[in-house]
Amino acid sequence: MTDKYRILLEPDSLRLTAEHGANLLDVIRHAGVGIAAACGGDGVCGTCKVIIEQGCTGDTRYLNLSQEEIENGVRLACRYEVESDLTVRIPLQSRAPASDGHLRSLSTSEEIMAAENWRFAPPVFKIFLKLTPPALDDNISDLSRLENALLSQGIVDFRIGLAIVKQLPAVLREGDWALTLTLSKESGGLRVTDIQPGDTRVSLYGLAFDIGTTGVRGELLDLIEGRVLAQGVEYNGQAVYGSDVISRIAYAAKTGGLPALQQAVLNTLNNIIRQLTEHGGVPCRDISHVMVAANTTMVQLLLGIDPKYLRLAPYVPAVSAPPTISAGEIGLETGPGVPVNIVPAVSSYVGGDIISGLVGTGIFQRGETVLYIDIGTNGEIVVGNADWMVSASCSAGPAFEGGGIKHGMLATSGAVEGFNIDNAVDEPVINTIGQARPRGICGAGLISTVAALFKAGVIDPKGKFQAGVTERVRIGTDGSEYVLAAANTTETGQDIVLTEIDLDNLIRGKAAMYAGYQTLLSSVGLSFNELDKVVVAGTFGSHIDVECAIAIGLLPDIDRDKFIFAGNGSLLGARLSSYSTELIEAGRITAKLVTNIELSDSASFMDNYMAAMFLPHTDISLFPTVISQPNHFAGGSGG
Amino acid sequence: MTDKYRILLEPDSLRLTAEHGANLLDVIRHAGVGIAAACGGDGVCGTCKVIIEQGCTGDTRYLNLSQEEIENGVRLACRYEVESDLTVRIPLQSRAPASDGHLRSLSTSEEIMAAENWRFAPPVFKIFLKLTPPALDDNISDLSRLENALLSQGIVDFRIGLAIVKQLPAVLREGDWALTLTLSKESGGLRVTDIQPGDTRVSLYGLAFDIGTTGVRGELLDLIEGRVLAQGVEYNGQAVYGSDVISRIAYAAKTGGLPALQQAVLNTLNNIIRQLTEHGGVPCRDISHVMVAANTTMVQLLLGIDPKYLRLAPYVPAVSAPPTISAGEIGLETGPGVPVNIVPAVSSYVGGDIISGLVGTGIFQRGETVLYIDIGTNGEIVVGNADWMVSASCSAGPAFEGGGIKHGMLATSGAVEGFNIDNAVDEPVINTIGQARPRGICGAGLISTVAALFKAGVIDPKGKFQAGVTERVRIGTDGSEYVLAAANTTETGQDIVLTEIDLDNLIRGKAAMYAGYQTLLSSVGLSFNELDKVVVAGTFGSHIDVECAIAIGLLPDIDRDKFIFAGNGSLLGARLSSYSTELIEAGRITAKLVTNIELSDSASFMDNYMAAMFLPHTDISLFPTVISQPNHFAGGSGG
Repeated sequence: MTDKYRILLEPDSLRLTAEHGANLLDVIRHAGVGIAAACGGDGVCGTCKVIIEQGCTGDTRYLNLSQEEIENGVRLACRYEVESDLTVRIPLQSRAPASDGHLRSLSTSEEIMAAENWRFAPPVFKIFLKLTPPALDDNISDLSRLENALLSQGIVDFRIGLAIVKQLPAVLREGDWALTLTLSKESGGLRVTDIQPGDTRVSLYGLAFDIGTTGVRGELLDLIEGRVLAQGVEYNGQAVYGSDVISRIAYAAKTGGLPALQQAVLNTLNNIIRQLTEHGGVPCRDISHVMVAANTTMVQLLLGIDPKYLRLAPYVPAVSAPPTISAGEIGLETGPGVPVNIVPAVSSYVGGDIISGLVGTGIFQRGETVLYIDIGTNGEIVVGNADWMVSASCSAGPAFEGGGIKHGMLATSGAVEGFNIDNAVDEPVINTIGQARPRGICGAGLISTVAALFKAGVIDPKGKFQAGVTERVRIGTDGSEYVLAAANTTETGQDIVLTEIDLDNLIRGKAAMYAGYQTLLSSVGLSFNELDKVVVAGTFGSHIDVECAIAIGLLPDIDRDKFIFAGNGSLLGARLSSYSTELIEAGRITAKLVTNIELSDSASFMDNYMAAMFLPHTDISLFPTVISQPNHFAGGSGG
Repeated sequence: MTDKYRILLEPDSLRLTAEHGANLLDVIRHAGVGIAAACGGDGVCGTCKVIIEQGCTGDTRYLNLSQEEIENGVRLACRYEVESDLTVRIPLQSRAPASDGHLRSLSTSEEIMAAENWRFAPPVFKIFLKLTPPALDDNISDLSRLENALLSQGIVDFRIGLAIVKQLPAVLREGDWALTLTLSKESGGLRVTDIQPGDTRVSLYGLAFDIGTTGVRGELLDLIEGRVLAQGVEYNGQAVYGSDVISRIAYAAKTGGLPALQQAVLNTLNNIIRQLTEHGGVPCRDISHVMVAANTTMVQLLLGIDPKYLRLAPYVPAVSAPPTISAGEIGLETGPGVPVNIVPAVSSYVGGDIISGLVGTGIFQRGETVLYIDIGTNGEIVVGNADWMVSASCSAGPAFEGGGIKHGMLATSGAVEGFNIDNAVDEPVINTIGQARPRGICGAGLISTVAALFKAGVIDPKGKFQAGVTERVRIGTDGSEYVLAAANTTETGQDIVLTEIDLDNLIRGKAAMYAGYQTLLSSVGLSFNELDKVVVAGTFGSHIDVECAIAIGLLPDIDRDKFIFAGNGSLLGARLSSYSTELIEAGRITAKLVTNIELSDSASFMDNYMAAMFLPHTDISLFPTVISQPNHFAGGSGG
C-alpha cells in the first residue's frame, strides 16, 4: 500500500495526492485553491470549514463546530489530517473572497492533467436589482427604470434585445419590482440574456458539450460551485448521413442536406439536454450558458453554415472563431437568449475540439514539449508547448468510437472495454463498463481485444484471422470473425463478434494516426524520444491500456511514463471554459498560436500511412518492445 | 402674379422661394445646401452642374456643357437665372465633399416647415471591400479575412451575427472576393446588417413608416440621393379588433389577442412594402433600413409587447426608447437583418409619432412658442420650443381618418376632400382627391362638409340635422342623414351620406382635441393668442381648410397667419430621421425634454370637453369670427 492518498477536491473536481498525515488546509492551499482561514490555521476561527464527503471522519474532538455540522461531515481543514483517500468539498462560505475570484491550480497526477491558475469567473453572471415602483409622477418606461438601476450599479454599456424587453413588464410586476438579470460577457460587451422575478442568484447553470463526429457528450454544470451535476452521451444523429466529416460534407451539398444535418445534431443535443436537466433536477429554463467544443465541420453544421469549402482546396472555413450566438438562433432547447460560446478552431481540419483539449489540459501554459493526440473519427495531433504549436489532422474513421465496427458501441454500460487471454485462447476474460452483460465493443475494448488476439497469434500482422489457432474463429456473414462472447452470455442475446472488416477499419484508423504523428514530428525536426510527454485524449472509453495501444501500433513505442491519458480533452476544455472567461480567452490565443500543416499536401504522409498498415508496423524497429512479445509473427511484418 | 418663384430642390426635397432673376447658385448656397463651385461661380469650372427638371430652360448659350447634357436639362447653377417656378436636382457629383456630409436647411413657407441644418448621414451605410483570395498558405477563415480587411479600413469594433456569417462563403465566392457590407450605426456600435457580392454602393434604400391607429403610411426612400421614391397608405389591419388604442389594448388581453394584433399590423406593413418596392422598382432585398414612428401602443403591438400596463395607472410603457431591432425579429418582409429604428416616446399616451413630428417640423430647434397639434385617432398636443415642451394626449377617435364614419375612407383617390354650398343647398360642389368619382369621405372632407352644412343651417350646433332646410336630409337606416352624392354619381353606385352618428363622432373628436389644447395651455399659463405658431399635423387629408376647421371648433379662432399645416408630421420625421442620425439623436433628446401631463387626471379637461360638445363651442366668445358667419344658429349655442 502506498503512503500517497488520492483526494478529489470539489467543487473544483481537482484531483490531488497527499502524504499520510498531511494537514488538509496545507494540501488545499498548496493546490492554489482559495480557502478562508482567518486565524491562519490555528483552529480557532472556524472559517476553513470543509465537508468530508468520502473517507475517514478524522478526529472530531475539540472542534469549533456544532453537533449537526459534525454529523454532516463538516470539519475544519486546519485540524484534519489525511489518513485515507478522500472526497472533500469546500463550501462557498469557506472560499476566498469572491470579489477577487479565486485562482485554481491542478497538480497533475498520472491520470489527469488540467489547466492551472485560472480565475473562477464564468462568462455569464447574475445581478439582483430592487427597483423603485412607478407612480403617476414617476412613470418612465420599464426599460428606462431598469437602465437607470443598472446605471446606479455602474453598468452603462450593455445590450438588451427585444425578447427580454417583451418579458420585462410581467417579470417586474411578478417580482414586485425585484428582479435578477443574467448578463453574458461577449466581445461586443455585456448582453442581458435573461430576466427572472425576485432574487435567483443562488443558482446558475451551464452546459458543456463536446460534439464529436460520432459521439456527442454533454455535462450539466453548476456555475456557482463549479461542479459537474450530470453527464450524458449519445451518438451524433448525423451518423446516419455518413460516418466521417467528408461524407457529411458531401451529404450537406444535397438538396435539403444541410438543414437535415443541422437538425440531426440539434436533436441529439436536445436529447442530451433533456437527460441532463432531468438527472440534475434543473429546469431547462435555468440554463444560463452553453459552451461547445467541436471540430470545424461539426461547428458549421451545427450553425447551419454550408461546409462545402472545408473540403475544397485551399480548405477555408467560413468561420474559425464564431461570435457568441443565442440558443434560439439555432434551436437549442434552452431559453432562446442563452449565449452559446464555441471554442475557436485553427483551420478546416483542426477544430475547436483540439483547441479545447489544449486549453483544458493546460498544454497552452506549459514549457515542456508535448505531443497531444486526440483519437477520434477526425484524429487530431498537436506538438509544441506554450510558445509554439504545430497541428495536423487525419481521418481515422469512427472505429475508436465503436463506429464502423459490427458490434461497436459508445463507451457506455455493457461495452467491452477490456479483453485478455490468460492461457487458453478459447477462454478470454472480458471486462465491460459497469460490469454489465456485454452489449458490444467500445474503442478501448477494440484496442484491447485486437492487441490480445494479435499477441496470441489469432490475428496476423496483416489483420487477418489465422485458422486453427482457436475454435472461436469462424466464417460469418461478413467473412472470418472471432466470437468474443456467445449469445447466451450477452445482453443482446446474440453472439458478439469481431470481423476482418472491423480489423481492417481499425488498422486504417491506427495507421492514419501513427502516420500523422510521424509526419508532423518530422516536419518540426523532432523524434518520438525527444518528447517530454504524450497526452492522449479521446472518447474511446474511460481508459485504454497503453501496452495494448502500442502493441497494435496506435501509439509510439516509447517510455511508458511519458504517456498521460486525459480522457475527453475537448469536453474538459469546454467545462473549464464554462468556469472561466480566462480560459475562453486562452482558447482564442491558442487558436492563433497553432500553425497547421495539411497532411494531405505531404507526400511523406501517404508513405507513412501505407507503412503503418500492419500490426504494429511494417518497420518493426519502431516497436522494439512489441517485437519481444511472444507469439509475434516474425515473418509477417515484411509483407 | 408674384415676383417670388417656388423652387423645389431635389434630392433634398427642399422648398425655397426666389426673386425673379435670382442667381440659382446663390439661391442654393443661401439655403445652406452644399454645392461644388470650384471657380467661385464664374462659369468656367463646370462643377456646379444642376438638372432643371421642371421650369424654364434658361439661356443655353456659352455653357461649358455637352449637347447631350443640355438636352437632358443640365445647367450650370452659376449661369442660371430664376424666371419661373422650378424643380432643380443637384446631382451627387455637384455636391460638396461627402466626407464632411453636407448640411441641409429648409426655409419655411406657408405650406411646410421642416428641420434645418442637419447633416445627411443615414443610420446605415455601405462599404466596399476587395479581399485577397485565400491560398493554401493563407487559408484563414472567411470571417477572419473579412475582419482583417475591415481592420485595415480602421473598423475594429463591429458586430456580425450568425445570419451574415452563414451567407459569407457564397457571397465572397460569387463576388470573386469583392463584396459590399451594409453597416448599421446602433447604440451598441456598428453592426453588419447585410453583405452582397461585388460593389453595390450605387444604391441604398430605406423605408419610413408612420403607423397610426387607423391608417399606416409608408415611403420608400433613396438613402443616397435623399428622396422619396414611392408612397403608400393602408388602413391598419388592427382596425377590425377595435377602433382606438383602448379597445386594441383590451383585445390584446384576450387569448391570442396580442399575436393577432401584431400579425395584423405586420400584414399591413408588408402589403405596403410590396406596393412601395414594386412601384419604386426596388427589390425588397435591397431595403437597408426601416424607420418607424408610431404611438406607444402601436409600437408595443408591433413588437409583440403586452400593452396591458399602458392603460393601468400609473400608465407605464414597457419601453419608450426601443433598441434597434432586426426586421426578422418581428417578421417584416425585408431582409431579416435589416435594422428597424423606432422614434422614442415620452409616455404611454404621447408616443414616438409626436416626437417624430416635433423633430420633422424642426420645432425642437426653434425659439418661437409653438402649439403642435397632431390630429389623429390618438390626438396629441405639445406646446413649447427648443428649451421646454409640455405634452398631452386625448382620444379623438378615428373620425378624422375616416374611421367610425359611415362612408368614411382614408385620404386616397375618390375621397371627398372639399365640399361647398354656393347658393342652393340642394346643389353642393364636391371635390375629390384625384378628381375621381366619389367613393367616400376623408377627414378633410368631413370637416369641410360639416362646416358648410353648419353654416348653411342644415346642421344645428348640437350636431343634429334640421328638417326642412334641404331635401337632401332624409331618414336612413341609421336615423337622419344628408346625401352628399347620389348613387348615380358615385364610384360605388351607392348614395354617399353623412349620418347623425357620424356627426356625433366628429363632434366628440373635435371636442376632445379642443379641450386638450385648452387644458394644456392653461396648465402652462398661456392663452391661444400668446402662441407664435400653431402647427397642425395629421393624416386627415392633404389639406384642411383652416376656416372650416375653426368653424366647427376643431382649431382655435385666432390669427390665420399663425397656422402652419405640416401634413403628416410623424412620417416627415421618420423620413428625415432616415436621412440623418443627427435627427434620430434629436428624437432621443426631444423625448427626454418633453414633460407629459395626463389629461385624465385633470378635472378641467372633462369640463372643457363637455363645453366643446357643440358647434363650434358652448362658449361662443371663444369663436368671434365664427359668430359673424351668416346662417349661424345664434340661439342654439347656449343649449
